[in-house]
Amino acid sequence: MSETIIQLAHGGGGRLSRRLIAEEIVPRFGMESLRDLPDAAELKPEAKRLLFTTDSFVVQPLEFPGGNIGDLAVHGTVNDLAVCGGRPRWLSLSLILEEGLPLSRLRRVLDSAAAAAAQCGLQVVTGDTKVVARGQADGLYINSAGIGEMFPGFDLGPGRVRPGDSVLVSGPLGDHGLAVMAVREGIRIEGGPVSDTGPVHRLVQAIGELAPLVRFMRDPTRGGAAAVLNELVEQRDVGVELTEADIPVSPGTRAVAEMLGLDVLQVASEGRLFLVCAPEAAEQIMARWHKLPEGGGAACVGRISGEAGRVILVTVSGGRRLVDVPQGELLPRIC
Amino acid sequence: MSETIIQLAHGGGGRLSRRLIAEEIVPRFGMESLRDLPDAAELKPEAKRLLFTTDSFVVQPLEFPGGNIGDLAVHGTVNDLAVCGGRPRWLSLSLILEEGLPLSRLRRVLDSAAAAAAQCGLQVVTGDTKVVARGQADGLYINSAGIGEMFPGFDLGPGRVRPGDSVLVSGPLGDHGLAVMAVREGIRIEGGPVSDTGPVHRLVQAIGELAPLVRFMRDPTRGGAAAVLNELVEQRDVGVELTEADIPVSPGTRAVAEMLGLDVLQVASEGRLFLVCAPEAAEQIMARWHKLPEGGGAACVGRISGEAGRVILVTVSGGRRLVDVPQGELLPRIC
Repeated sequence: MSETIIQLAHGGGGRLSRRLIAEEIVPRFGMESLRDLPDAAELKPEAKRLLFTTDSFVVQPLEFPGGNIGDLAVHGTVNDLAVCGGRPRWLSLSLILEEGLPLSRLRRVLDSAAAAAAQCGLQVVTGDTKVVARGQADGLYINSAGIGEMFPGFDLGPGRVRPGDSVLVSGPLGDHGLAVMAVREGIRIEGGPVSDTGPVHRLVQAIGELAPLVRFMRDPTRGGAAAVLNELVEQRDVGVELTEADIPVSPGTRAVAEMLGLDVLQVASEGRLFLVCAPEAAEQIMARWHKLPEGGGAACVGRISGEAGRVILVTVSGGRRLVDVPQGELLPRIC
Repeated sequence: MSETIIQLAHGGGGRLSRRLIAEEIVPRFGMESLRDLPDAAELKPEAKRLLFTTDSFVVQPLEFPGGNIGDLAVHGTVNDLAVCGGRPRWLSLSLILEEGLPLSRLRRVLDSAAAAAAQCGLQVVTGDTKVVARGQADGLYINSAGIGEMFPGFDLGPGRVRPGDSVLVSGPLGDHGLAVMAVREGIRIEGGPVSDTGPVHRLVQAIGELAPLVRFMRDPTRGGAAAVLNELVEQRDVGVELTEADIPVSPGTRAVAEMLGLDVLQVASEGRLFLVCAPEAAEQIMARWHKLPEGGGAACVGRISGEAGRVILVTVSGGRRLVDVPQGELLPRIC
């Protein structure tokens, strides 16, 4: 029996389009509001301050150890809201499908997205599906946009960071990027990297009482820790000093990074949180994070320095190395 | 001098990514909130009821008579909010760029998107940019998600429609779809079709006082009028009776439709509004629409019938023809 595949007509606005949406998408996301397929979903937020974000996902391969493009798209948007101090509430999912995509594969992706949304306690309330011909996409691209309600008390921004502040990370770095790269390069080793794709909003929620002492949060996705930290200090009169010995890296991830000659600090994570806080808050934040599974590997990895605009790594051997922004395209289509 | 093109590194999260965003995107949209490139934008809505929608745009060619994928992406999302009774306020734009895309082309698209957003009085507050390799996209895809605030007084839905209601349309049908098809097929005729891509929110705003008498609104995009009206009556005990003689169609659009053997009723418009209202409101709505440039061609094209689930066209010669949903993929990548 031949496999059911996506056809151009699934995106044409006619009968097949409607069946795809009615049979594969609406039931998975329990979109009560979408029964009549309106063009927009109605929301009744409780908070007065909302957050709004969007991300497109083009990861390749579509499925990788630890996740697939479906849960990645949900987590990515949840995390963009969370690092700005928001509780994720509503999500949109918009699909660009390539003609020929096996329906079974689309189902696995949608199942993962639905499970991730449920786990994060958010509703997928609106969406869109387009189909392009063979050779005009690479299987499947997903856009997710998200709306969150601000947790009270956070006042975040690079401008609030000052020398002496602590730099924390919620878990090992680079697992997502190296899990994806290992598949692409055909590297199979025991205990190899598994993507950390996952939500960070509970890590933010858990430290709500300490919110006034938190200066800055960001998830180290494309460009990894190097991009996040350089962006934080660029054109400012502070720097970052990282202590290599304190940076958590999973053994399998380290092994693959070494095989591929990649710097873990430049590789994307998709379920980690960088946080800068007043030094007196670091211990309490760490204690709260360690109680959550997604914060079990949290560590204090450095501090804010007075070295304007520079991110420095104090190596295990005691040397000092500049951590630069990735220059070129080290890792295309990592998310 | 060789032309500047998009490179994979523009999507890598490193220096080139940041330059592209800082130099080409942020200034065009005047995103004050984006100076620090946070992951999410903060919104302070005034209304308690919000609307949320998303659409991905894959139109081919990227530029066509009357517009390009940039203003189309803004108008599409504005219109999805407007037909649900919402005033568009905030927009996200997410780009998937193909390596090799000329920067000049991207600039034209972004200029159009920015102009459309300004014209609609909405702010582009957040975005994302990904780059895929040559052959993995077709130049450029855009996703836009939008948030609107409900105009007061509207209570819309297919379930509110009843026999005897009037069916109005805000202007000629099929201009967008046939403008795109004409380019693709290399048809050049004098006075040929020009896309109607444009916003419909002012048409909705203009009839605010009559809101309680409005039952249903929808923009006839993919699948055209045929898809919208069949969706409206499917599995309901009402039908639609259209009067062919009253349906506005531009001469150039009609000519190209005949050359290509396409039914204008199945072709997308991107700046038109179908509206069903109590019969006593039709004349007043038409009068208000006629005062606006985008409603100058508005017409009452039919009425709601008791013929359950059927959309019937009363032809110029007095015959009755069933208007069916497009079955296959007549017009791929029309929006």
